[in-house]
Amino acid sequence: MAPSAPNTAGSVGTVDTQFVDLPKPVRLECGRDLYPIRIAYETYGTLSPARDNVVLVCHALSGDAHAAGFARRPPAESTRDGFAADDRDGTSGKGLGWWDGMIGPGKAFDTDHHYVVSTNLLGGCRGTTGPSSIDPATGRPYGSGFPVITVADMVRTQRAFLDELGIARLAAVAGGSLGGMQAFEWAILYPDRVDAIVAIASTAALQPQGVAWNAIARNAIMADPAWQGGDYYGTGRTPDAGMGIARMVGHITYLSAKSLGDKFGRRLQFSDDIRYTLREPEFEVENYLRYQADAFVKRFDANTYLYTSRALTYFDLARQYGNGRLIDALRHVSARTLLIAFSSDWLYPPSCSEQLSDALRALGKEVESHVIDAPYGHDCFLLEEGRQTPIIQEFLARERQGA
Amino acid sequence: MAPSAPNTAGSVGTVDTQFVDLPKPVRLECGRDLYPIRIAYETYGTLSPARDNVVLVCHALSGDAHAAGFARRPPAESTRDGFAADDRDGTSGKGLGWWDGMIGPGKAFDTDHHYVVSTNLLGGCRGTTGPSSIDPATGRPYGSGFPVITVADMVRTQRAFLDELGIARLAAVAGGSLGGMQAFEWAILYPDRVDAIVAIASTAALQPQGVAWNAIARNAIMADPAWQGGDYYGTGRTPDAGMGIARMVGHITYLSAKSLGDKFGRRLQFSDDIRYTLREPEFEVENYLRYQADAFVKRFDANTYLYTSRALTYFDLARQYGNGRLIDALRHVSARTLLIAFSSDWLYPPSCSEQLSDALRALGKEVESHVIDAPYGHDCFLLEEGRQTPIIQEFLARERQGA
Repeated sequence: MAPSAPNTAGSVGTVDTQFVDLPKPVRLECGRDLYPIRIAYETYGTLSPARDNVVLVCHALSGDAHAAGFARRPPAESTRDGFAADDRDGTSGKGLGWWDGMIGPGKAFDTDHHYVVSTNLLGGCRGTTGPSSIDPATGRPYGSGFPVITVADMVRTQRAFLDELGIARLAAVAGGSLGGMQAFEWAILYPDRVDAIVAIASTAALQPQGVAWNAIARNAIMADPAWQGGDYYGTGRTPDAGMGIARMVGHITYLSAKSLGDKFGRRLQFSDDIRYTLREPEFEVENYLRYQADAFVKRFDANTYLYTSRALTYFDLARQYGNGRLIDALRHVSARTLLIAFSSDWLYPPSCSEQLSDALRALGKEVESHVIDAPYGHDCFLLEEGRQTPIIQEFLARERQGA
Repeated sequence: MAPSAPNTAGSVGTVDTQFVDLPKPVRLECGRDLYPIRIAYETYGTLSPARDNVVLVCHALSGDAHAAGFARRPPAESTRDGFAADDRDGTSGKGLGWWDGMIGPGKAFDTDHHYVVSTNLLGGCRGTTGPSSIDPATGRPYGSGFPVITVADMVRTQRAFLDELGIARLAAVAGGSLGGMQAFEWAILYPDRVDAIVAIASTAALQPQGVAWNAIARNAIMADPAWQGGDYYGTGRTPDAGMGIARMVGHITYLSAKSLGDKFGRRLQFSDDIRYTLREPEFEVENYLRYQADAFVKRFDANTYLYTSRALTYFDLARQYGNGRLIDALRHVSARTLLIAFSSDWLYPPSCSEQLSDALRALGKEVESHVIDAPYGHDCFLLEEGRQTPIIQEFLARERQGA
């Protein structure tokens, strides 16, 4: 029997990633000017004549510009079977965008109304300039020569990119996790350009435990001799082992203990008994981790992981903009804010979202805050589409109606 | 000024680790006979003429026989300053035993009443036979040739060791974490030899998330090229990088998010600002993790970590003894049971302890169960001495009084 055609109801259809080269350098927070910069991006929906229906979608640690629809050229690893559908944080197993359940006709970010723009962030490895790009000064990939970037640098670069597209104003900036951090940076850096932000499973600053997990993941990569101080491009060796460990750590922090228990329990790979082996997976969850690691290293660059992880640990609105006080950092925000958190998210717990909403409310800002009771941990922002959709639709509809 | 003498009030004083060679092989669960086996042990207090006051103390993943008092020869790494006092899971920075706060005159395991015996577990690297020991068949260290062991193997070996000491009966077996697992194995394997067990921060089987963390830690070690398939002894290379990552993962799982936040927050190493570096620690918690990793690899063998971690993931009373039902596994326990769990312990959560107490109560067994509200996570079993002490003292006193 031939495979049935994919269900494209509500889909943006088949899409191509596009590219723009920025015309001039971007001044980074570390003081360096970066040039050239290429941006990989996708758009879904139609730009209104007034150019007032743009929603910028920002991805998380390991995402890319392909947020919705079917990629015309699915990446090589997407043909694999097994757990591929779980690898939702980037391009999925079917070439489907990482937030396809949220972007499209009738979806949370409704392309019947909005023109959705998604870029691969600065430092990325999926088309936007990053450590694997050619450094014009040497003619070789930057590697360790790539500047250490911040979330603000990502946002400044997005603004320069939108200028190229002739988009001066955003109806909304939206994202989960690191994507939500970018939304807040937008609201603070460019208050007169952002009407609303949607920050999901996000925070004003990563919790100390999250800082620790990210440090462990980065250490695992940097401890891999194949990393070679960051200059592994062209050597025929890549720090796959370290990246695999980093991904395993990340993956477990994205899930709740309960969802891991529900999914795998303590089931053995071979139901008869244990096999007294150190090297081979014995439990299903052990096998799953190895699969996740193997799939990730095939599609993602280790240096991009390092730079992006560093940026998200640096992110700290109170330190950056408020002399240590969050309320002062948010004082000039004019965008309406929608916050969504998930009860089982222990990496970006609801208390972080509440801290943001409390500060915004204390300032008299317009803020709407939800905690969705769902079991999947931080990954809820990618999985709990059904329950996020009406909240986001209503929030954005009020914007359209000028309410 | 000369350093002041250590405060030895309540201390067992200066102790030497002793050694016993078992007279015959121990049959392991994997089917192999292991011989020779040397056991490293310490004793504190005085054996009663009736030999009825023995408390066997079992250590956790990275501990050793030196549970109390001052080691006559402090290990080399113990002279380091800084965070050494935090490295409580093994020999501490002052040569003090890992459970010194719990063992001694007037302490929880009161050496005025009890003869406390502590061994380094089978597979260990601190004097008991393990993967770094010489394999008599080759004349070289076992390395990958060491058999994969279980918690039951550890306990069978302890029993053979106690036989050598002429100790037939235990007033109690006590331990936290993996040590508590050993206590339950004792109660099930040798119900007629154990009067009571004290299982602290323990479980009938590690939760799936804990299985995952342990798998990540082991993968980090095995992914280090210096591991060399386990046969690194004598090569001049040891998998320190992988072990460091493993320790970092373990360390964060032993602490609560709150205690990590209270201890470090998001404080930067250099208070002026971030320094835009990937390689160097920026946050205090990042520096702390590196310190913990460095200290650990100096005192612990990577293969022992692998074998012990594998044993504790295998441990599953229901699977081993109850055809999948915990209640059936516990049916023949005759020891009185004391369970202590900690509210903030997310690796061995109170629910695991409750599951054990519920099953024991349903069987009409004598069980006492406590959940201590304390913030330090799994490490509470090493840190919350003050609140555990009266609970344990009263529980053991009833034993002595034959109540």
